[in-house]
Amino acid sequence: MKIAIDAMGGDHAPEAIVQGAVEAVSQMEHVHITLVGDEKQIRQYMADHERIDIIQTDETITADDEPVRAVRRKKNSSLVLMANEVKENRADACISAGNTGALMSAGLFVVGRIPGIDRPALSPTLPTTDGTGFLLLDVGANVDAKAHNLVQYAMMGSIYMENVRKIPNPAVGLLNIGTEEGKGNELSRKAYSYLKEAQVNFVGNVEARDILLGSADVVVTDGFSGNIALKTIEGTAMTMFSMLKQTFKSSLKTKMAAGMVKGDLKGLQNKMDYSEYGGAGLFGLASPVIKAHGSSNSRAVSNAIQQAVHMIENDVTGTIQTTVQAMNDKKGEDE
Amino acid sequence: MKIAIDAMGGDHAPEAIVQGAVEAVSQMEHVHITLVGDEKQIRQYMADHERIDIIQTDETITADDEPVRAVRRKKNSSLVLMANEVKENRADACISAGNTGALMSAGLFVVGRIPGIDRPALSPTLPTTDGTGFLLLDVGANVDAKAHNLVQYAMMGSIYMENVRKIPNPAVGLLNIGTEEGKGNELSRKAYSYLKEAQVNFVGNVEARDILLGSADVVVTDGFSGNIALKTIEGTAMTMFSMLKQTFKSSLKTKMAAGMVKGDLKGLQNKMDYSEYGGAGLFGLASPVIKAHGSSNSRAVSNAIQQAVHMIENDVTGTIQTTVQAMNDKKGEDE
Repeated sequence: MKIAIDAMGGDHAPEAIVQGAVEAVSQMEHVHITLVGDEKQIRQYMADHERIDIIQTDETITADDEPVRAVRRKKNSSLVLMANEVKENRADACISAGNTGALMSAGLFVVGRIPGIDRPALSPTLPTTDGTGFLLLDVGANVDAKAHNLVQYAMMGSIYMENVRKIPNPAVGLLNIGTEEGKGNELSRKAYSYLKEAQVNFVGNVEARDILLGSADVVVTDGFSGNIALKTIEGTAMTMFSMLKQTFKSSLKTKMAAGMVKGDLKGLQNKMDYSEYGGAGLFGLASPVIKAHGSSNSRAVSNAIQQAVHMIENDVTGTIQTTVQAMNDKKGEDE
Repeated sequence: MKIAIDAMGGDHAPEAIVQGAVEAVSQMEHVHITLVGDEKQIRQYMADHERIDIIQTDETITADDEPVRAVRRKKNSSLVLMANEVKENRADACISAGNTGALMSAGLFVVGRIPGIDRPALSPTLPTTDGTGFLLLDVGANVDAKAHNLVQYAMMGSIYMENVRKIPNPAVGLLNIGTEEGKGNELSRKAYSYLKEAQVNFVGNVEARDILLGSADVVVTDGFSGNIALKTIEGTAMTMFSMLKQTFKSSLKTKMAAGMVKGDLKGLQNKMDYSEYGGAGLFGLASPVIKAHGSSNSRAVSNAIQQAVHMIENDVTGTIQTTVQAMNDKKGEDE
């Protein structure tokens, strides 16, 4: 099994990427990795390894590049070459911690969609208080989603949670502004009526207030609302940690107290850190494509590799393809 | 100046409502209050007061009532009678901590809109790290908003922040999934182009990650996304406080540390408590209508009363009316 990785994407690239790759191959004997990027820089962080190849390129896509244009023009960028490895069947999956929009474009235009999936979804797993986590999709691949897109998200999310995270019959919730049927905007009301009929374990509307408590295993929504929810969670958590830090620095007494709970608070911060659950999958593409968080450290990269491995081993892509085929056949019969 | 209050709405009604009213009249000598509700229950929490009247009614709208139907059928409910006081000019503003949907319906159908305002907006002030707070609108009055609604929200929010919160030339941001122009869904891209031309201090797109840092004084969005953002902030903060509490309870050492920082953490929790900034205004109605948080204690109720007083004193409603008139006249000329 081979995984292609954009060695130049992310805040701590290439160091964290290379170290994460080294960690991953040392833990998983059947995994081969292709690092794509500037060989000279990559070599600074690793010795020769029989299961790690390097594809040399100087070109990179930066965070400031306009995604679609960058993918079209920078044909030799580490991100595009990485996607090519998958397209041309030299790799089974790919991972980047770089420009999210560019990865989505490369996913769509280079790797390609699963036939029958109208729009891929960007799908991070977010923390819940009980440590299980829930899958949120979409968080921005498709900002003007239609109701039938959300049904496909529900199906893809369920397959992932069941096969990779081993949650039997995962509960699917629709992100909404109230729990009762009939709540919400035009899109969410329509999606509710479709989801009721879909072959997923639909548990109804879930409110943003309750998703971190684990009210559903899979939460579906349009890419705009999902992105707002995701970034609000990040922003609120970040703000609270920084206020907490300020509080602990405010006096000698609080500083002493801080010293006593330092390890425990670090544990709390880790619990909120969703890179523990791997990266965000771009579900609906012909092969697993994973967006690791921009701020990924080596551990987060290694987690994302492990996630890709599980997706390949459990044939998530194949299962999505078979299921969407059956869904569309059934729709054809109904009509 | 007279303010009508639904004495029966909210988790701690009527006790917290009555006590909040008593606190407010004792602090503000020119304020008269009409409490609407069950007189027998209300009398349990207050002595006679020359500036507090009671309108007796047994009927209430509960949290479970379907809003529009409840307002239509429960003509003698405390909430509807409260709105009647404003409609018939016996009160200058009204406040309820009860059913949000019902208050929005009563606002729309009983109090009525300002001519020229297409859709009112529900607008809480949320905490920022620097303690200034920002106004978020809309959080659910209008879940299928159009771009021109968001321009009216920007105008109304600016007038409120400038006149009541005394922030000169308040910065208006559009809640979006990226800061660059051209980001977002169809609605937000269109709203961006309108806001650029509007007579407000538009600072561009703001991301959900940054709003608690005070990236804008007024943040506009459609009611669906705004509600998601609001409830995600609440849910994340609540989750983190409960995890923090767990952390502090985990060992003898952490319990000791907790004792040392108890007061400071309470201060942090207060900082995140947006009832400190009063209730959520329903902007765009013919008189100030304020939704106090369902969990309001007496202090939150008293803050909401103070907020209503400031809105009346600074003629927020009149200023909105004049401004929208001028906007619409100008639009007429342009066409």
